[in-house]
Amino acid sequence: MHPEITALYGARFGIAGILSEDFIDLYRQPEATLKAVARTPSSALGTSRREVGAAELAQALDVFRAHGIRYFFYNGGNGSMGTAHQIQAIASAAGYDLQVIGIPKTIDNDLLETDHTPGYASTARFFASAVRDIGADNRALPGQVEVIEILGRNVGWLAAATSLARAEPDDAPHLIYFPEQRLPLDRLLSDIERIFRRLNRCVVAVCEGQLDENGEPFGADVRSGSRGSLAMNLAHRLALLVMERLKIRARSEKPGLLGRACTACISDVDWKEARRCGNAAVSAAIRGETGKMVTLLRDSGAEYTMETGLIGLDRVAFLERPFPAEWRNQDGNDVLPQFRDYAAPLVGTIERHRMLVDAPVSKSLNILHTEES
Amino acid sequence: MHPEITALYGARFGIAGILSEDFIDLYRQPEATLKAVARTPSSALGTSRREVGAAELAQALDVFRAHGIRYFFYNGGNGSMGTAHQIQAIASAAGYDLQVIGIPKTIDNDLLETDHTPGYASTARFFASAVRDIGADNRALPGQVEVIEILGRNVGWLAAATSLARAEPDDAPHLIYFPEQRLPLDRLLSDIERIFRRLNRCVVAVCEGQLDENGEPFGADVRSGSRGSLAMNLAHRLALLVMERLKIRARSEKPGLLGRACTACISDVDWKEARRCGNAAVSAAIRGETGKMVTLLRDSGAEYTMETGLIGLDRVAFLERPFPAEWRNQDGNDVLPQFRDYAAPLVGTIERHRMLVDAPVSKSLNILHTEES
Repeated sequence: MHPEITALYGARFGIAGILSEDFIDLYRQPEATLKAVARTPSSALGTSRREVGAAELAQALDVFRAHGIRYFFYNGGNGSMGTAHQIQAIASAAGYDLQVIGIPKTIDNDLLETDHTPGYASTARFFASAVRDIGADNRALPGQVEVIEILGRNVGWLAAATSLARAEPDDAPHLIYFPEQRLPLDRLLSDIERIFRRLNRCVVAVCEGQLDENGEPFGADVRSGSRGSLAMNLAHRLALLVMERLKIRARSEKPGLLGRACTACISDVDWKEARRCGNAAVSAAIRGETGKMVTLLRDSGAEYTMETGLIGLDRVAFLERPFPAEWRNQDGNDVLPQFRDYAAPLVGTIERHRMLVDAPVSKSLNILHTEES
Repeated sequence: MHPEITALYGARFGIAGILSEDFIDLYRQPEATLKAVARTPSSALGTSRREVGAAELAQALDVFRAHGIRYFFYNGGNGSMGTAHQIQAIASAAGYDLQVIGIPKTIDNDLLETDHTPGYASTARFFASAVRDIGADNRALPGQVEVIEILGRNVGWLAAATSLARAEPDDAPHLIYFPEQRLPLDRLLSDIERIFRRLNRCVVAVCEGQLDENGEPFGADVRSGSRGSLAMNLAHRLALLVMERLKIRARSEKPGLLGRACTACISDVDWKEARRCGNAAVSAAIRGETGKMVTLLRDSGAEYTMETGLIGLDRVAFLERPFPAEWRNQDGNDVLPQFRDYAAPLVGTIERHRMLVDAPVSKSLNILHTEES
């Protein structure tokens, strides 16, 4: 470590911990603890959804001064990069020497200027595996529509990743929608009905933030918070509409926060890249960089390799990267193959479920096929 | 294999496949396929919720006669054991020589006469892991109540298993309820409020079949089917009630069918015992047994070992084993330690999440603690 760096503090619950001087001494953590915590989902330091204004920014600077904090690493999504950018600006205006480096970390994959963000690939792996497994259940007990709610308020990156569940064209998911596009209820229902009539089963991947043609969440219950309103039970609401309008048996599953916390579905590439981003942030700070975010830059070769880069925080702060329109099909209900090329190396292999080979036994009787109950 | 056994058929979609002579030749499956399928969740043959009457039972016997089927293995829960029992009775009455052996298989763990049922431990492992992981998320971003919906219409065996998520007393889940007992809404809310006031977080495990003091699902939407009615969105409904009545931020997660299909959470003991039950069924049939179900019998030693046994189908058919009242605490909101002794060897180790050690940094300023948003 750099000779002038004599302490490493972690802020409890993000910006809230900075404002209340709630720090934990990371140099006093046993090596084994740090190793184990690195394999633990969610933030070991805690996190926060707190929004900060001018008074809090000034207060943060006071805290940095009081503790002699000269290097500030902040990880998160575009909101956190916005806060980091503001802190860098206020420190600079006050003539306080502070190196501010942002470290990308969001399951939403919605930061600009980076190929992808740490956190995305593991959550993508969870949802792709979940859709594959629920798809196997739906195949074994057909006659039912499954609506699976995927994390994602505004962007369809995680919904898109469920496409990696498919080994064969008729595997789940049969329909994938993108919150970047409004989805008329009639179109959703006709899509579902078409698939169901053909396969007698249907798995739909839909984001928690999906809106209908009126910009409303299909009549779902809504919770309003500091980050805007969000449907609480969207997939359930859609399953109800399928039953009411199409008279088809339907249910919904909402793994919800398990998607971002599931220990069993960590992507190995994701885990390694998260560490690399942290390492790159420290190197950059020691080199004297400030006001930058670490980025991941994909090399152009056939094999998947990454470099890290740096970009100005102003280029990513409070900006959102939608799922690319050119990777959606024309009907807006599936991804195009380019997305698989992008995502598969990050997410890793989703092992296909094996099926029995088709070896029917000749019928001996002439039984009228009775209706499935 | 026994010399007189010249073919092995699998019925597609359970009893429905028998009635429509929809069989698949299992002797024509490559060894590699059988091995791979054994690691695949859900039924490779397909399953059915179809209920059968006298006409269908007679038809099943006609199909058996037409194909020369003399050994009938049926796996499932108490409903399937009931069907197997009826088929055995009708064959016997007709003087048709048929060996009928039931193989226990239900995630609900609600068959009588067996220590537990294959399928339970893996689903228990899923829900324990899910509650641990969502609990980590709730701890990292507190100020919120999490209601997690657990599979289980009538019995709390799976809800109870979420207790295995805890390494420390204040770990999630903080409350576990049992559908065997009605749960007054006021009691649920006061339980949640008490925990939340103390910890500023709370994770609740509640079964999809939980009913309130009026025998109703707390105002949740209900779907009626052949197996009775079931709430479709119980956890969501409870989260809404927490927000309305307690004015505490709340959300719900419903992993749903993923709980019984998740490839990543298979219990090794469960997997091995499922095969043992199948082997025991074949051995019993060849020995001339009929009208029996294979059971798992726990040896009394300190180390976990199992024997298989046999019990008359009449002793398990259509009967349900509730979660034992003596393994619930007095308040009906947690398990007692006896349950852990029972379940831990089946489910396997749920690795604890490691936390940072408490190494606070002294405060330098005298900042008034501002409210968490």
